[in-house]
Amino acid sequence: MIVVMNKNATKEQIKNVEQKLMELGFLTHPIYGEVKTVIGAIGDKRLLNTQEILTMPGVENLVPIMKPYKLASRELKQESTIVEIDDIKIGGKEIVVIAGPCAIENEESFIDTAIKVKEAGAKILRGGAFKPRTSPYSFQGLEEEGLKIMYTAKKITGLKIVTEVLDTRDVETVASYVDILQIGARNMQNFKLLKEAGSTGKPILLKRGLAATIEEWLMAAEYILSSGNDNVILCERGIRTYETSTRNTIDMSAIPVVKELSHLPIIVDPSHASGTWKYVAPLSKGAIATGADGLIIEVHLDPTCALCDGPQSLRPDKFSKLMEELALVAQAVGRQI
Amino acid sequence: MIVVMNKNATKEQIKNVEQKLMELGFLTHPIYGEVKTVIGAIGDKRLLNTQEILTMPGVENLVPIMKPYKLASRELKQESTIVEIDDIKIGGKEIVVIAGPCAIENEESFIDTAIKVKEAGAKILRGGAFKPRTSPYSFQGLEEEGLKIMYTAKKITGLKIVTEVLDTRDVETVASYVDILQIGARNMQNFKLLKEAGSTGKPILLKRGLAATIEEWLMAAEYILSSGNDNVILCERGIRTYETSTRNTIDMSAIPVVKELSHLPIIVDPSHASGTWKYVAPLSKGAIATGADGLIIEVHLDPTCALCDGPQSLRPDKFSKLMEELALVAQAVGRQI
Amino acid sequence: MIVVMNKNATKEQIKNVEQKLMELGFLTHPIYGEVKTVIGAIGDKRLLNTQEILTMPGVENLVPIMKPYKLASRELKQESTIVEIDDIKIGGKEIVVIAGPCAIENEESFIDTAIKVKEAGAKILRGGAFKPRTSPYSFQGLEEEGLKIMYTAKKITGLKIVTEVLDTRDVETVASYVDILQIGARNMQNFKLLKEAGSTGKPILLKRGLAATIEEWLMAAEYILSSGNDNVILCERGIRTYETSTRNTIDMSAIPVVKELSHLPIIVDPSHASGTWKYVAPLSKGAIATGADGLIIEVHLDPTCALCDGPQSLRPDKFSKLMEELALVAQAVGRQI
Amino acid sequence: MIVVMNKNATKEQIKNVEQKLMELGFLTHPIYGEVKTVIGAIGDKRLLNTQEILTMPGVENLVPIMKPYKLASRELKQESTIVEIDDIKIGGKEIVVIAGPCAIENEESFIDTAIKVKEAGAKILRGGAFKPRTSPYSFQGLEEEGLKIMYTAKKITGLKIVTEVLDTRDVETVASYVDILQIGARNMQNFKLLKEAGSTGKPILLKRGLAATIEEWLMAAEYILSSGNDNVILCERGIRTYETSTRNTIDMSAIPVVKELSHLPIIVDPSHASGTWKYVAPLSKGAIATGADGLIIEVHLDPTCALCDGPQSLRPDKFSKLMEELALVAQAVGRQI
Repeated sequence: MIVVMNKNATKEQIKNVEQKLMELGFLTHPIYGEVKTVIGAIGDKRLLNTQEILTMPGVENLVPIMKPYKLASRELKQESTIVEIDDIKIGGKEIVVIAGPCAIENEESFIDTAIKVKEAGAKILRGGAFKPRTSPYSFQGLEEEGLKIMYTAKKITGLKIVTEVLDTRDVETVASYVDILQIGARNMQNFKLLKEAGSTGKPILLKRGLAATIEEWLMAAEYILSSGNDNVILCERGIRTYETSTRNTIDMSAIPVVKELSHLPIIVDPSHASGTWKYVAPLSKGAIATGADGLIIEVHLDPTCALCDGPQSLRPDKFSKLMEELALVAQAVGRQI
Repeated sequence: MIVVMNKNATKEQIKNVEQKLMELGFLTHPIYGEVKTVIGAIGDKRLLNTQEILTMPGVENLVPIMKPYKLASRELKQESTIVEIDDIKIGGKEIVVIAGPCAIENEESFIDTAIKVKEAGAKILRGGAFKPRTSPYSFQGLEEEGLKIMYTAKKITGLKIVTEVLDTRDVETVASYVDILQIGARNMQNFKLLKEAGSTGKPILLKRGLAATIEEWLMAAEYILSSGNDNVILCERGIRTYETSTRNTIDMSAIPVVKELSHLPIIVDPSHASGTWKYVAPLSKGAIATGADGLIIEVHLDPTCALCDGPQSLRPDKFSKLMEELALVAQAVGRQI
Repeated sequence: MIVVMNKNATKEQIKNVEQKLMELGFLTHPIYGEVKTVIGAIGDKRLLNTQEILTMPGVENLVPIMKPYKLASRELKQESTIVEIDDIKIGGKEIVVIAGPCAIENEESFIDTAIKVKEAGAKILRGGAFKPRTSPYSFQGLEEEGLKIMYTAKKITGLKIVTEVLDTRDVETVASYVDILQIGARNMQNFKLLKEAGSTGKPILLKRGLAATIEEWLMAAEYILSSGNDNVILCERGIRTYETSTRNTIDMSAIPVVKELSHLPIIVDPSHASGTWKYVAPLSKGAIATGADGLIIEVHLDPTCALCDGPQSLRPDKFSKLMEELALVAQAVGRQI
Repeated sequence: MIVVMNKNATKEQIKNVEQKLMELGFLTHPIYGEVKTVIGAIGDKRLLNTQEILTMPGVENLVPIMKPYKLASRELKQESTIVEIDDIKIGGKEIVVIAGPCAIENEESFIDTAIKVKEAGAKILRGGAFKPRTSPYSFQGLEEEGLKIMYTAKKITGLKIVTEVLDTRDVETVASYVDILQIGARNMQNFKLLKEAGSTGKPILLKRGLAATIEEWLMAAEYILSSGNDNVILCERGIRTYETSTRNTIDMSAIPVVKELSHLPIIVDPSHASGTWKYVAPLSKGAIATGADGLIIEVHLDPTCALCDGPQSLRPDKFSKLMEELALVAQAVGRQI
């Protein structure tokens, strides 16, 4: 960590900061510049309440040298993490595709969809039982009834299942039905929920918050990892920008950035990122070519009648065609679906 | 609601959309333009699953005419809401100032702070018992112990108290101690928490999400209002932008916009918005002159030793001086503190 | 165009708006809703000074139905535009790669780079002669001397050349040397420059502004098209967001959005978008798979010594390897390099 | 400047970086941390081509300690700059208000407006002769004819005049008519124009770019200052964010931030920032209370018929009333209008 003193800092102020740092267990190295003095502090900043320094007289700024996350960092663990759910491996050579409707609406259509996405090559089935809706007047999900339908679909198709959990009180119930717990974008910094979900030991699909930096996202992963659960799958799903022609702006560069900073696998959700089914196929191909480890795609038998997010859902036939195209792209970058 | 058909929509497609709208209880008025046809649909869009229309063949877009929120809207309720906590009225002629430390650290310093902010003219005492922290390695709050300290401070000073609640499981406990429940920025779309907090009947201080539009914020208020609780106080606390010289960018225009769209009172948090104590005084004055109904300001006896957000906290003497300056500004815009 | 009247608009106000619209040559169709009245207006909004309506008493809002651009729109011209520079076709089946250093530094190194990027498969050579630099203390380019070096490199290698023009006074000179004029991100709304560059008849590489919406970008293209120059190549180069781990955020969804809204070709600049050479290869592959018509990539013999943007430049050997990988991706999506 | 070496940097790489820094005239101070090594470099970073270091093997990052601007910095010049145009002083105790229509439409109405804003207390008259318009089909201004009308209005009223210049070729002509040259938001990084306008010696009203950081804005001011012209007036006019209820988001915290970092005066444009006349009054009061040195407000005799930006213009009577209210706010913060 580097402490930057302001231009008019007195010798005494500099000395006080040094002394404080030493009390906190840091080794200090002051550098007297022509205009400003900076103090290098060697030690673990993560143990430090930085503002104790930041508010001292004469201090202008603190510059961290180490990343604030540790367990999520590739500096700590160089080899990439592969999250395994039985024989499915996320983060390895194979691209894993998760598919299914936004919300579970009824057993018949859900199972029919499950069969179709499996035939097309999906390995994991998604479906919302608890839905976070911007409006209190929108459909809020079938709740536990939905979880039971998911479980039936799993039994019939052999697909693994993933669903979002919204409330700490539901974590145990949801975890008893599904293979992967999803933390949605709106709850990325719902730290109580992160801890509760993490403590189940189930793999966690952690969506990036709508306005979260990559660093904050990795800090949210750190909450889960620090609870002893290593199985975190990051999911880029678009960030909020000023552009309105897509629902969100997919941050494709997050893929190589995450790969550099962290050992965790990263998948992409082109359906929520764009909000429009027409953009799902090009963005899916783009994500794979950029290096994503998987995709989560919304598929609905009849998007016109979907209770949630119909406009961004693919019909099964379009999804099936997309899977064939994705296989070619995966191969072109040395991977497979 | 206006349904815009695309340029190449066939007559049959137009007819199908009209028929569907009529089935849903709308009156329809097609307008045949030179290039495109649009269909006016009269009825309550809030009852409609809009994507049912949006995904029909030939439909390009839907344009809502009514706002998606109803109870929060000034169209429904023209007179401004005044939230009353005994004799304190938020949203009336008087500017209400809430003050206190970011986190409650111990009884002695908290009560000392409480006495000082009361002397300076604050009416409500803030303090965090449950802290949402970006890092799992940061101080997470004293929890119920902190609530007890708050309650003692209330007894001693007569100040009302407000604190943030993070978890649905804590709502009942928190509500049993405090006068106002705060929903933090990170939880603005934690809909389960909104409902749970709303159902206590306690006034809710609803912070704007870090990347929430004003419409989404009013929709979050709608969750609380629709649970039968009318006492919502909106709090602007800065939004996320590309600018890095302040922690967030205070959206001062949210004040007149909210005043136009909604009847709910709005206060401003200049401490979290700017992240720097030096900017708190100018922004507080600016907020009052722009029309805010109140302020929530961080005050700490010794910001250098604060366990949380020290750099943005004012010392009691600076806060006291600010209150005097604010009184002049309030008067200049026809209000009082 | 739809005129939305506010809730309390009087019958007379509605009548006045209708009359005004009719005077302006529109056919009007009022629709009387339960709460609000809207007036459909048939005619060409592009001829209208919309605020004349927007500021009339009782008017709440105007909703355009047609896009504000016309010549750039795919509604007007359904087949995709192919910009031809002799035998090079941008916007067809072939992916066109433009490469070269950020700034032209001297003849020897520039020609050496030109030869190397040609060998690797680039078709067009880039290089900055006039540099827009954030700091007045940074290297500002070799100006006309640089143009001469470019021209020599063209003669030697047979590559086409593109460079940025910054000032209306330089347009004629720059156009006399190069094959394509580049309008940089900072000048996307320098309308005088757009017109002046457009009037040369040379193909224009139009970079997206740092905070420009896709609609504004297409409006900037409209400036060039309306000057009678059809040869516009759009270039996505990253937009400004709150994320700081990359210099800008590449907006990959702009590719399918532009393809849907416009007939113009679109290429991607992964070097400026990310600001980091390590991210150039994955983002280049991603852009091609998403549907871009080409790429513009910075290549420098020795990035350590580059006078401008060294950190985002590839060495020729890395560029050469990337071109091989891109060929595979292009093939996987039915195109070729 | 601090050079951060990456975790795996070799001793030789560290030595090479040190040697390079010394060659460039820096004194170096390596600090060997437990995980990473950093090298403090003392000297003037502004003279350095930073990427020469940034691209060296083993280097992870560079952390500047000094601001990149020098002449615009309060570190260089502690007392605030007061820009004087005859007896008008911008940046002193008095708040200066600039008012007038968006575009000059004809002599009669412009002079009428000038007389009315003068009566209300404005000191400077604004009006657009050259208009930057998003659409090529919108009114582009009266050009030199407009400048002549401005000049006549100045003669009649005694008001000083300010207008925007768009093209380097027009700078001389515009400067021969007006007292202050305005550089618009879209041209904030049109560096050729900055230099050309700066070299006239006239005061420059420098609007903040739509997506410019405060640092980039001060760097643009540095271009003017480094051309020997000290008279720069900064103008905050709203930044682009995701929020759509106002045209832009006024960044009120830019006022105290600029006051801290720079000695230059700063005024606010609430008309362009909000895009809606209803928000102009509250934001004007807010800006003055926050510490702005002045305002630039659009006033139009009949906003309904304005050729440009009517919806954000105040009628003269509303402007006059606002000026009275502003006088009270100015007084409350120790200033005067």
